[in-house]
Amino acid sequence: MGRIDKVAASAAAAVADIPDGARILLGGFGVIQSWPTSLMKALHRRGVRDLTIICNTPGVGPTSPQILAENHQIKKLIASFAAYPTRPTPVEAAIKSGEIELELVPQGTLVERVRAGGAGLPAFYTPTGVGTDAAKGKEERVFNGRRYVLETAMQADFALLRGATADRYGNVVYRRGSRNFNPLFATGAKTTIVEVERIVEPGAVDPEAVVTPHIFVDRVVQNEHPLDLQAIRELSRRYGKQWRLEARQAAGGPQGLPPELMARKAALLLRPGEYVNLGLGIPTLVSNFIDPERNITLHSENGMLGFGPLAGTDEEDVDLYNASGQLVSQLPGASYFHSCDAFAMARSGRVSTVILGGFQVSERGDLANWNVPHTGVGGIGGAMDLAAGSARIVVVMFHLTRDGAPKLLRECTYPLTAMRCVSTVVTDLAVIDVDDGGFVLREVAPGVSVEDVRGATAAPLRVPDTVREMEFG
Amino acid sequence: MGRIDKVAASAAAAVADIPDGARILLGGFGVIQSWPTSLMKALHRRGVRDLTIICNTPGVGPTSPQILAENHQIKKLIASFAAYPTRPTPVEAAIKSGEIELELVPQGTLVERVRAGGAGLPAFYTPTGVGTDAAKGKEERVFNGRRYVLETAMQADFALLRGATADRYGNVVYRRGSRNFNPLFATGAKTTIVEVERIVEPGAVDPEAVVTPHIFVDRVVQNEHPLDLQAIRELSRRYGKQWRLEARQAAGGPQGLPPELMARKAALLLRPGEYVNLGLGIPTLVSNFIDPERNITLHSENGMLGFGPLAGTDEEDVDLYNASGQLVSQLPGASYFHSCDAFAMARSGRVSTVILGGFQVSERGDLANWNVPHTGVGGIGGAMDLAAGSARIVVVMFHLTRDGAPKLLRECTYPLTAMRCVSTVVTDLAVIDVDDGGFVLREVAPGVSVEDVRGATAAPLRVPDTVREMEFG
Repeated sequence: MGRIDKVAASAAAAVADIPDGARILLGGFGVIQSWPTSLMKALHRRGVRDLTIICNTPGVGPTSPQILAENHQIKKLIASFAAYPTRPTPVEAAIKSGEIELELVPQGTLVERVRAGGAGLPAFYTPTGVGTDAAKGKEERVFNGRRYVLETAMQADFALLRGATADRYGNVVYRRGSRNFNPLFATGAKTTIVEVERIVEPGAVDPEAVVTPHIFVDRVVQNEHPLDLQAIRELSRRYGKQWRLEARQAAGGPQGLPPELMARKAALLLRPGEYVNLGLGIPTLVSNFIDPERNITLHSENGMLGFGPLAGTDEEDVDLYNASGQLVSQLPGASYFHSCDAFAMARSGRVSTVILGGFQVSERGDLANWNVPHTGVGGIGGAMDLAAGSARIVVVMFHLTRDGAPKLLRECTYPLTAMRCVSTVVTDLAVIDVDDGGFVLREVAPGVSVEDVRGATAAPLRVPDTVREMEFG
Repeated sequence: MGRIDKVAASAAAAVADIPDGARILLGGFGVIQSWPTSLMKALHRRGVRDLTIICNTPGVGPTSPQILAENHQIKKLIASFAAYPTRPTPVEAAIKSGEIELELVPQGTLVERVRAGGAGLPAFYTPTGVGTDAAKGKEERVFNGRRYVLETAMQADFALLRGATADRYGNVVYRRGSRNFNPLFATGAKTTIVEVERIVEPGAVDPEAVVTPHIFVDRVVQNEHPLDLQAIRELSRRYGKQWRLEARQAAGGPQGLPPELMARKAALLLRPGEYVNLGLGIPTLVSNFIDPERNITLHSENGMLGFGPLAGTDEEDVDLYNASGQLVSQLPGASYFHSCDAFAMARSGRVSTVILGGFQVSERGDLANWNVPHTGVGGIGGAMDLAAGSARIVVVMFHLTRDGAPKLLRECTYPLTAMRCVSTVVTDLAVIDVDDGGFVLREVAPGVSVEDVRGATAAPLRVPDTVREMEFG
């Protein structure tokens, strides 16, 4: 058995047969960390064109797929995020100019479609995206009284992945949150190429710990671009502006809570023993305000259960990040898995509360949080999948837009993330429940009146006899 | 976070709330090894009735679900094998008497249906079982010119599983081939209960090695019935008769090869570097005849790549077995995974050759190998799933039945395993290819004439100019 040897001499050798027009899966979760950078750079040097790239997001910076867009190598992008929220990127520019065709796919649907292809299954039904743009043109069907969308398998010619260690046969293990899409994408291509930090002899990887068995791997290559903590920090500093969360007062609106207090309020809504997912933006702050005594377990779409507060400088690890790409800490009893398993936990209702950011919420509980029309190409991410489970959905958002427009409405005017899913909205002004009758005011922020909230809400607001002023634990 | 504690005081306490009529997933692959015996025995003591049991096979002996059938606790069985080939069991008797209703499901479809339920997906299309009894009454649909069957999610009230180690939160790891159905079944029930050899503190299980994250686990309990090697050996001796493979001469037929030489011949058909699955019966012997220099990797449905010959006495391990339940050896570069991943490898065509036993093969390449009408309740196992991939299917079987009836036919008269799947048949008399024109004789066994083979074959047999006498390496 000693002769199987899938080790390629270099990243350049590993991608030497990728032709123009190839369809390529790129592993990685993507905002900043852990791309198959050596393989992408080799592809960049070769200059092959008209590529179809399938990935979570094209990311940012010189280690990301953006380098392929800059070099005009991408014809089509299939992703769950296409643009970085606040900073223009080469991919976004190329989408807007028509150079790159974009197919936006909900994150959980994306990995599940690739898994289906890798498992020899042509199609499946999912609750994700029902009633939204993601379901447009797709067959719909009712099972047990609920609506589902038919999604088809997605396959590719090549998969370019990044692992931690591989043996010469091609058995691969990953590190922590960097497992994410990689094990699924390994199954989805005719030719799977993995760059790793370390190549070892067969037998040196614990057979119980192998995540991608070698049957799925065609080539292994030594990583030529290790990403260090300093580089991550620099990228975060250069591209990370959207994570700065400042208190703000909308034009003409009352002064409400700063984001930290909104997050703290949301944290108090969590029930002991819950499994909780935190979306992009203010929700990520919630991890800093969870009482350890309440046995709440945080879940992340890149494949982690049991992370703690944002990492302090001394505990930062390049492979230990949440779904927003922020470096986090690991608690005892944590576990890592791939993104298909992460979304299985969400869609099946085991994640019991999801805290999401929002652009608009309707009085029926419809949520819009992925695209502001006419302002960009948008990013669905995992929100549609998270909202498709039976979890309680708590939306944390400012009550008004910067321009003073209400975000709690009779009907959403932005593209929907999911229908009838929101249970509670925490804003800088109030805590509002959504029930069959619409919005119900539960708490108001200190210094904010019931009339302030009513004035900032563009839908009927029921006000029970007891509306408390918010407390924070 | 210190207070999550899912440890139950005893197996009896862990199953105390399982009511009459419950629908229960039983983990384990099943022939002899690694059942959740403590939990089943506790259920047996409680005497709850009208259970629906979902498992790979009801197995044999006092550590298996047979104890529930003996005690008349089972109303319905959903399984891929219902009966042990040569020995009557309480389950088989109860099926024949009508006490137990039986639903036979292909093994890969069974785990995939449970996975779908655990992933919040209501249904999927699969190639497994098209044109067979397993597809009867099910919707069929064509994708890209190929026929597929619609299968729906399967869920249960309880899952009773067996792991190796768990922490108090409920993170579980398994040992070697005993991973099999357990991680899938953990996702498929409202209440998941796992018995383990060892319970540890949170943090003592490597987060990267957790196979079932605690979000899927409700109760953990100390195993009260460890299964030792001696017990496995005894069960194998008492119930293992069907694995004795003797040379035989059919009534009126010519004397052909003994099974060992048939297996050796099949091993020679394998190509260097292939990934190969070996079915029940004579095919399992092939592992003893594979030249290590040819870099062939053996795949097993219970979730293993890289096993070697049957285990010698000094390397026997209760958790290291192939899909036939035989103890095998582990080679360097081996890996373990769950059965959904095992079948993904098969259906997607990554397992490139499958060697199966057969009851009948038609000149079109149809295979029947799971049920002889009117003789028993049958067992589909993984054969339908293995035959549904794009693998080359090699059938190894005696050319004639014991009674002298031909098994190579114009049309199969037994229920089909899969249509148009067989490439080559190795019998005690000959090696025969199946192509678009039907059977083609390639080699004859020593002492066997072309006319002997023709006389034993109930379909036209093309005989090229060169028909070699078999050689064995």
